[in-house]
Amino acid sequence: MASAALRPLCLCWALLGPAAAAATANIVLLLMDDMGWGDLGAFGEPSKETPNLDQMAAEGMLFLDFYTASPLCSPSRAALLTGRLPVRNGFYTTNGHARNAYTPQDIVGGIPDSELLLPELLKKAGYTNKIIGKWHLGHQPQFHPLRHGFDEWFGSPNCHFGPYDNRERPNIPLYRDWEMLGRYYEDFKIDLKTGESNLTQLYLQEALDFISKQQASQQPFFLYWAIDATHAPVYASKQFLGTSQRGLYGDAVREIDDSVGKILRHLQQLGISENTFVFFTSDNGAALISAPKQGGSNGPFLCGKQTTFEGGMREPAIAWWPGHIPAGQVSHQLGSVMDLFSTSLSLAGLQPPSDRQIDGIDLLPVILQGQLIDRPIFYYRGNELMAVRSGLYKAHYWTWSNSWEEHGKGIDFCPGQSVAGVTTHTQEEHTYLPLLFHLGRDPGEKYPLSFASEEYQQAMEHISGLVQQHKDTLVPGQPQLNVCDQAVMVFDVFGREEKD
Amino acid sequence: MASAALRPLCLCWALLGPAAAAATANIVLLLMDDMGWGDLGAFGEPSKETPNLDQMAAEGMLFLDFYTASPLCSPSRAALLTGRLPVRNGFYTTNGHARNAYTPQDIVGGIPDSELLLPELLKKAGYTNKIIGKWHLGHQPQFHPLRHGFDEWFGSPNCHFGPYDNRERPNIPLYRDWEMLGRYYEDFKIDLKTGESNLTQLYLQEALDFISKQQASQQPFFLYWAIDATHAPVYASKQFLGTSQRGLYGDAVREIDDSVGKILRHLQQLGISENTFVFFTSDNGAALISAPKQGGSNGPFLCGKQTTFEGGMREPAIAWWPGHIPAGQVSHQLGSVMDLFSTSLSLAGLQPPSDRQIDGIDLLPVILQGQLIDRPIFYYRGNELMAVRSGLYKAHYWTWSNSWEEHGKGIDFCPGQSVAGVTTHTQEEHTYLPLLFHLGRDPGEKYPLSFASEEYQQAMEHISGLVQQHKDTLVPGQPQLNVCDQAVMVFDVFGREEKD
Repeated sequence: MASAALRPLCLCWALLGPAAAAATANIVLLLMDDMGWGDLGAFGEPSKETPNLDQMAAEGMLFLDFYTASPLCSPSRAALLTGRLPVRNGFYTTNGHARNAYTPQDIVGGIPDSELLLPELLKKAGYTNKIIGKWHLGHQPQFHPLRHGFDEWFGSPNCHFGPYDNRERPNIPLYRDWEMLGRYYEDFKIDLKTGESNLTQLYLQEALDFISKQQASQQPFFLYWAIDATHAPVYASKQFLGTSQRGLYGDAVREIDDSVGKILRHLQQLGISENTFVFFTSDNGAALISAPKQGGSNGPFLCGKQTTFEGGMREPAIAWWPGHIPAGQVSHQLGSVMDLFSTSLSLAGLQPPSDRQIDGIDLLPVILQGQLIDRPIFYYRGNELMAVRSGLYKAHYWTWSNSWEEHGKGIDFCPGQSVAGVTTHTQEEHTYLPLLFHLGRDPGEKYPLSFASEEYQQAMEHISGLVQQHKDTLVPGQPQLNVCDQAVMVFDVFGREEKD
Repeated sequence: MASAALRPLCLCWALLGPAAAAATANIVLLLMDDMGWGDLGAFGEPSKETPNLDQMAAEGMLFLDFYTASPLCSPSRAALLTGRLPVRNGFYTTNGHARNAYTPQDIVGGIPDSELLLPELLKKAGYTNKIIGKWHLGHQPQFHPLRHGFDEWFGSPNCHFGPYDNRERPNIPLYRDWEMLGRYYEDFKIDLKTGESNLTQLYLQEALDFISKQQASQQPFFLYWAIDATHAPVYASKQFLGTSQRGLYGDAVREIDDSVGKILRHLQQLGISENTFVFFTSDNGAALISAPKQGGSNGPFLCGKQTTFEGGMREPAIAWWPGHIPAGQVSHQLGSVMDLFSTSLSLAGLQPPSDRQIDGIDLLPVILQGQLIDRPIFYYRGNELMAVRSGLYKAHYWTWSNSWEEHGKGIDFCPGQSVAGVTTHTQEEHTYLPLLFHLGRDPGEKYPLSFASEEYQQAMEHISGLVQQHKDTLVPGQPQLNVCDQAVMVFDVFGREEKD
């Protein structure tokens, strides 16, 4: 990080002091769905079709080593909003080793009441909290976002899968707050043939309106913009269809890029950009099972969504806060979606809860002062710690892509990629001799270090200590996403009993 | 390309007129060795350690779809300097189907006298021409760069392989003009253990001195800076060793990045940057056979050096010409190293030779006016047209990575990558039903289009016409790199008979 670039910042801190600088900052988290590290021009996508996001990076800080907490949607989102690993907050299973689990509409689990979500905490500092888009933390009434700290909601409890028959299985609903507005494929169209849907425009307008309203009321706000156009079935509005070199997936990315540009410009036009912290990232790596027409790119990384290889968990990430973050910064801080919990609290002048383990860290010293904080990244799949990164080293304790059975059906988490002994189709344990990679020399995880090398010994000595400490102090949460029997597998969307 | 960005250019043209703008422009071609598309921060390398090259791109034009003419060093360089495909200029073989060939020191072939090289032509416009670094167009006396248009040379005829025993085989020499200065590993050290060598610094100083001298003499110049620190054995100067996250290969890239920055600043400080066209690219894709310690990255592309997949032939490319190229441009023009021949002639106010087929095109309308010129890219391996790109479609007429025999010995051109029916280890002919890829949706060449699709039919109809026309008019050159018998396999370096 260029030291010269830090000067305006120091000035800012000197004038305002840390508390004053942060205490009233609005927070906008732009969370993408299944977007991969390699999907933005700034991250090397060869079509380079994201001028607004690239500009956002040029005006702010690009994170090259930013991770999700799970390679699947629901646990990733639960981790972001609780600042805690899914194995702590309950968004995992114990009834299938290393099984990723989420909240389809036929599961009854959801975010436990005992978890403290970011918006619940922000309310204490006077924030108005809105979620736009996908919730994915449970669809039973007790899990409703307005029961967990959000003041407003426009969006859906589940993925926009469908269409369903509405007899055996209902189409997924969209809500405004407590009111069900309608359902996907009925009231909110997604044309599976053309990929046309205006949902991103609806989500954009909601965001612009909310920001305007909050600016007028002079109240701080937290906007969680969790849109899903890049999740299969991928969609884009009519005016974006056919505009990308990358096909429909690229059309969706272009519309998102355009929308993010409009949100940032809106903040600037309202004169609140210097008081609004904006962070862009994604919930997990690109879904290569849906590529190339319905899935994105993880750039040079191995495999994708559902895996704990870099392609499954390293995310595009950009922080933007004009007047606070010097332009054109690049950070190699190992970051996590869980840090957005702690960082947001810090922005609001709040402390994280002290009665539980919080995995997120406050990134403000990184973002504002260019610090690098030494911390590990834990890669979980369901109930299993699959891998750990510390510095540039990543140790795999378990390797697995997907089962031979799935693979035989054409489901492939690593299409076109095959690294012997690494992208294994059986679950391979390496606990006693982890596979170690140097992600600087080998970002694609293709060349495990020699077990006999001094480099291996030194790196593993350090990582083993981190793992030991992590496991010794881990108090796993009650698993919320176990699929046990039909008793918990009901079609129940906020009380609407679908089974009869 | 933003139309607003073109305004300064139009003004410039209006003031100077095309001829005046171009006729005296100096030309600097910065040609890297085995550097891959994914090796620069601007192209998405995850360590983002090339601030000078990224800045060069930000001030100029980034080419995302720029190609070499061969996935191997010698033919690529012969193509650049002649503007012609290797199959025309003789830098290929006929004694092995689809065999890549180059000029190791034990081959007698080289650039034919009948070929017209760029520096020979530029001399007619009063240019002083210097090559710094690797020549690789033959080491017999008749092939010496000063016999083919260059006025000065500091560098080597061959790769810096070695050390050799100097009995059976000599170490490779370095020359200043006609004088042999010494040999690698003897007079010009490369420490294979540490990777230390100061060669890039020597090449940098040569460039700076040449530019200064030319600026003082007010004569236009052509500098061909063909350095080789990123070719195995990879090397870097002491002050760059250990500075990269990427290990020794990254150290070499950092030193090159630093050197390019110094060259550009030198042009600016001398006040000639607005009269000097600079182009940065590489001779072929990253050599994945040498990865991770001695090889680079081809980003999201398939395979590497020696192959006609994107990883073997798509190159990083940046044009820089302050005051002429508006800052921050990105072009999707399908470009080729052979275009540097035609573009350089255009810059010098010269016409390309009319007595032979020239494959390069003049890129100035692309670079200065943002035009897009429709043209195909032909991917050759030795004597075989392996693939053709037109627009976003790429058709493979032959697929081959490398032989099972080589592969069995651990030589792998596509480590960690395996696409069924695509990265084949036997030479597979697809002439009658080419494998077709859409490089926008599928830059990694993983998903061939369905032969039955309308998209396939339409794209192939167009490409078939291009191929037919290309083959019908092709007049292959006399192959210079055939390896026939020991009679032509002598160790002879500019007359020095090594065999006794």
